[in-house]
Amino acid sequence: MIIRMTAGASEADIDYVVRRMASLGFTTHLTRDGAVTVVGVIGDLRSFDPASVATLRGVEAVLPMGRAFWMASRDYRERDSVVTVRDCTVGGSEVAVMAGPCSVEGRDQLMKTAWAVRQAGARLLRGGAFKPRTSPYSFQGMAEAGLELLAEARQETGLPIVTEVMAPEQVGLVAQYADVLQVGTRNMQNFPLLHACGEAGMPVLLKRGMMATLEELLLSAEYIMSHGNHQVILCERGIRTFETATRNTLDINAVPVLKELTHLPVVVDPSHATGKSSLVPAVSRAAVAAGADGLLIEVHPEPSRAWSDGPQSLDLYQFESMMESLQPLARAVGRSL
Amino acid sequence: MIIRMTAGASEADIDYVVRRMASLGFTTHLTRDGAVTVVGVIGDLRSFDPASVATLRGVEAVLPMGRAFWMASRDYRERDSVVTVRDCTVGGSEVAVMAGPCSVEGRDQLMKTAWAVRQAGARLLRGGAFKPRTSPYSFQGMAEAGLELLAEARQETGLPIVTEVMAPEQVGLVAQYADVLQVGTRNMQNFPLLHACGEAGMPVLLKRGMMATLEELLLSAEYIMSHGNHQVILCERGIRTFETATRNTLDINAVPVLKELTHLPVVVDPSHATGKSSLVPAVSRAAVAAGADGLLIEVHPEPSRAWSDGPQSLDLYQFESMMESLQPLARAVGRSL
Amino acid sequence: MIIRMTAGASEADIDYVVRRMASLGFTTHLTRDGAVTVVGVIGDLRSFDPASVATLRGVEAVLPMGRAFWMASRDYRERDSVVTVRDCTVGGSEVAVMAGPCSVEGRDQLMKTAWAVRQAGARLLRGGAFKPRTSPYSFQGMAEAGLELLAEARQETGLPIVTEVMAPEQVGLVAQYADVLQVGTRNMQNFPLLHACGEAGMPVLLKRGMMATLEELLLSAEYIMSHGNHQVILCERGIRTFETATRNTLDINAVPVLKELTHLPVVVDPSHATGKSSLVPAVSRAAVAAGADGLLIEVHPEPSRAWSDGPQSLDLYQFESMMESLQPLARAVGRSL
Amino acid sequence: MIIRMTAGASEADIDYVVRRMASLGFTTHLTRDGAVTVVGVIGDLRSFDPASVATLRGVEAVLPMGRAFWMASRDYRERDSVVTVRDCTVGGSEVAVMAGPCSVEGRDQLMKTAWAVRQAGARLLRGGAFKPRTSPYSFQGMAEAGLELLAEARQETGLPIVTEVMAPEQVGLVAQYADVLQVGTRNMQNFPLLHACGEAGMPVLLKRGMMATLEELLLSAEYIMSHGNHQVILCERGIRTFETATRNTLDINAVPVLKELTHLPVVVDPSHATGKSSLVPAVSRAAVAAGADGLLIEVHPEPSRAWSDGPQSLDLYQFESMMESLQPLARAVGRSL
Repeated sequence: MIIRMTAGASEADIDYVVRRMASLGFTTHLTRDGAVTVVGVIGDLRSFDPASVATLRGVEAVLPMGRAFWMASRDYRERDSVVTVRDCTVGGSEVAVMAGPCSVEGRDQLMKTAWAVRQAGARLLRGGAFKPRTSPYSFQGMAEAGLELLAEARQETGLPIVTEVMAPEQVGLVAQYADVLQVGTRNMQNFPLLHACGEAGMPVLLKRGMMATLEELLLSAEYIMSHGNHQVILCERGIRTFETATRNTLDINAVPVLKELTHLPVVVDPSHATGKSSLVPAVSRAAVAAGADGLLIEVHPEPSRAWSDGPQSLDLYQFESMMESLQPLARAVGRSL
Repeated sequence: MIIRMTAGASEADIDYVVRRMASLGFTTHLTRDGAVTVVGVIGDLRSFDPASVATLRGVEAVLPMGRAFWMASRDYRERDSVVTVRDCTVGGSEVAVMAGPCSVEGRDQLMKTAWAVRQAGARLLRGGAFKPRTSPYSFQGMAEAGLELLAEARQETGLPIVTEVMAPEQVGLVAQYADVLQVGTRNMQNFPLLHACGEAGMPVLLKRGMMATLEELLLSAEYIMSHGNHQVILCERGIRTFETATRNTLDINAVPVLKELTHLPVVVDPSHATGKSSLVPAVSRAAVAAGADGLLIEVHPEPSRAWSDGPQSLDLYQFESMMESLQPLARAVGRSL
Repeated sequence: MIIRMTAGASEADIDYVVRRMASLGFTTHLTRDGAVTVVGVIGDLRSFDPASVATLRGVEAVLPMGRAFWMASRDYRERDSVVTVRDCTVGGSEVAVMAGPCSVEGRDQLMKTAWAVRQAGARLLRGGAFKPRTSPYSFQGMAEAGLELLAEARQETGLPIVTEVMAPEQVGLVAQYADVLQVGTRNMQNFPLLHACGEAGMPVLLKRGMMATLEELLLSAEYIMSHGNHQVILCERGIRTFETATRNTLDINAVPVLKELTHLPVVVDPSHATGKSSLVPAVSRAAVAAGADGLLIEVHPEPSRAWSDGPQSLDLYQFESMMESLQPLARAVGRSL
Repeated sequence: MIIRMTAGASEADIDYVVRRMASLGFTTHLTRDGAVTVVGVIGDLRSFDPASVATLRGVEAVLPMGRAFWMASRDYRERDSVVTVRDCTVGGSEVAVMAGPCSVEGRDQLMKTAWAVRQAGARLLRGGAFKPRTSPYSFQGMAEAGLELLAEARQETGLPIVTEVMAPEQVGLVAQYADVLQVGTRNMQNFPLLHACGEAGMPVLLKRGMMATLEELLLSAEYIMSHGNHQVILCERGIRTFETATRNTLDINAVPVLKELTHLPVVVDPSHATGKSSLVPAVSRAAVAAGADGLLIEVHPEPSRAWSDGPQSLDLYQFESMMESLQPLARAVGRSL
């Protein structure tokens, strides 16, 4: 159960609620966001009547656990949130395309890609320096050298940088270079990492776990938000199902479902969701038509020579051609691109 | 393993192949489609060399089992197939919308819906007379009385009828009334039913099983085609996954994957794929943007009073409004609606 | 919603309930099982108060839809049901092993297998004459010739026969030869087939759909039972998941879950659940330890030459050896084998 | 691709291989385990012939990527590995039961449980001090105070401690108190954490991700092993599927599959795999019968008052009773308990 205090609740009000719950044998756990405090209550609540606490001074609402995302919900904020990244916005009228290589492999590869995606209309540059790889024997990323190249690419092209962070102790380092911290699908429920991103105070792109429900995604966003950072962008990137024709199954339903439940921007990653470059344009069009606020697209100058994710990367020409096909679609749903 | 004979193969050529395989201890199973014969080969093929039969007279190709859909493949027919239903086409430049109630409940409900969906731009009328229901205590459909009402609605509005058939022995009856025989998700691998639909010689709408891979869907289409009926329309209607926020998960990837593999038309059913009417318009837009050749939409004059599937049915106004939003999207992908 | 009438309810009582519901605008659907009648109620029940009908004469209980299996539930019958098949019982103290080839391929193959499995302790002989195959080009079964061989094997070995039926119009033919009608995983929700099996009045082995929930399995059992046949044996045979190391994922939880919910016997099919013969013995042991009432095992004299399912078939020696390992396990859980 | 060098390969041999691959345009990544070195090779390998490197001096084998677990495989070590934890062994003839509360909640709760599970035959004490919780408003664990209580419980009862570690920077702290580091299901692919556990040099219990394949589980074990720590215990704890009758679906097939592929011990967690205490005994019996080397069981003196996972926790009496029922089963498969 969580007890939401009103913005005007005094410390005495909060303290009274905490002591009241303690006297009934419950343990409490406080989370503060500016003027607002949320009291998490732990214990055997089956015979507890929420009404008995709902009327205490300073209590705004009492919610059952499980569906306990609040700052991420439309109840907390009715209007769409817009996350600003330098001169771009995610969640506004523009569909923000974030494009670039899966892994940063070197200066030439990165600069060539950065200029090409910018030219084609991408607004942010994505690229991995720390890479979560299933096998310990695979390329693990260029690490800080990769971050430096990304910063150089931003310097040259003006595109803000989206790059992944894999551990709490990396957040400080990555934050020095990145404009958006990416939390990958395997880390969606890495709670210490979410905590650290919450304290980083900069935009976070939170990818849905390949095995996570939408409710769990929103609760992970709530972790970041409850540590003070509301600049969260959600990303649907395909879920794991029985179908083997594609790498994952894009859950396109997730776009309108999330739009109903949350005010946070929602972007889609058709590269991971399909695993096959020939499918990326059609699925990107579907995402824009469904209402996505942005796309995350893997692009490589020579996909067949990519160190990771080659089969799902578009080459520079394919990316440009796809972007052209997206223009009339964005207009058809009242957006620009 | 299957051995495809050329169109010009003689009976003697075929007979020689069959006897050759028998002499090696294999059993064969012949399927004929006009001038073309396919020889299915059964037995322990692990140490068999396909090259030893590939060079026999009249043999066009030798394919491993498992990936043995052929008439459904782009290899068999490179150009898109167009299925003609009275004055409509499915698979051509137009996006064909098939709309109507989940169940036929009575004359008023059906006529009101039929006129409204026609007015809003639907090209076919869907409605169930035989209903596959999970519980034996649920409404099982109006049966032949429902078929008669559907025929009456066609008479009045001119809309061709799509309706479900559940058993081989029903095919004759349903075929007297319907323009398109619908095979439901629970019957995608009801092989005697597929066989009967194959002999019916009229358009069949084959819904993907909620647990079926795309390869299995194509093999089920191949069952119908191998019994002589090539007028098959495939339907993606959502698959079953771990996500519980929606009734099913629409596999939007399926649209471009199927377009690569098969020449058959592909339509999408956003009503079953979401289970929630508020999500249907966004998901319908996604389907059109991804390249679907049509949509299957549940519409009811009073969804809250529907005998089945109320929560996922649009009311007449919602349907009209959705159809308007689809027009610019269809144009954006070079289609009409 | 369903309304269960008491066994002593008169026709007038039932008629009154039906008319009452009709006067409130609902449609009803009657199902009778001996002296007991169940009234299915269809319509917008959201503002209907069940209490208003619960007190009418002859009404035993009012249940919400969705969880509407009743004859299959422990509420209907508290003690375990035992299904008797000639001199065997399924659901009693003995673990009943049903073994034999996937497909009947000929007299030698069948007789050799039948004698061997009988010798090793199997109590029933399984074998397919009508085969549901994913591809139309695969072996489709020996049909009636296969049924005749099965009857001959029973004549010789005394083992009762379990064999699959695929369509309602086949039930009469198969019932002439079989002791247990098997409904396969792809037909678990083939409702006309369930209806026909319900009227056949003989034991039915109902396999869980590979993507069906346990509730749906019980509702399918209820279809058979509501048409008058209570001799239903449930079979867990593996479900479809993301894991590709095995053909399916055996849901071992299903055994104790079903034992809580239903009085019907529960058997397990480790052959389909694993798809690999080397895994069958360990998984069979697990099933017996979890409380399964029987096992369904594919056995073939030469698995590498089987026309279907060779990789998951035990050879005669492997089967004998597995049966020996099951003896102490059955004893450890208080059963015989 | 990975290149395994022989134990006797010299630095010069290794260096030659690295330079050879570099000259062909590939990037390499070295992993050392004692005398043995593994060279990971990254780049476009499609037209590369492995035979060209297989014959170089010091090269033992060349393996394709994807199936690149090696130290975890039966090829690396044919005989079963036994992990020793103080006076217990996991992977030997004994089935090792690890029992205790989901969360450490206080001294009384923990001591009472520890003595009871020891009395009933458990060999290790499990309990969470750092808790990964889906909601930020839930109890997050007692942290170091919980670790101190666990150490105290070990002091009193002699039971070694299994407890979870959630972040690389926690490994040092947790390692001071724990005998086995547990990596939870949400962290199975938290690669920095696996790296840190690899360097900790003490037993690690690696839980399968709820949506991870068995191959991915083994690759995660390989991460730990490739950093020098071979004391890895694998844990099957249920996977996420469409079935909602239970919290997860126990993949019982995983036990014999893993036994074929790896020498590492395999334990099963029936508490999380079912989510319901009434199902735990039957599923525990199944796990032992399938060949599991141990069980991980949640036990609480008063499950209804537990701060986490109450519905799946056995009380002290239920645990004792279950342990008694496991004795004859363990004997039936040639194990002790």
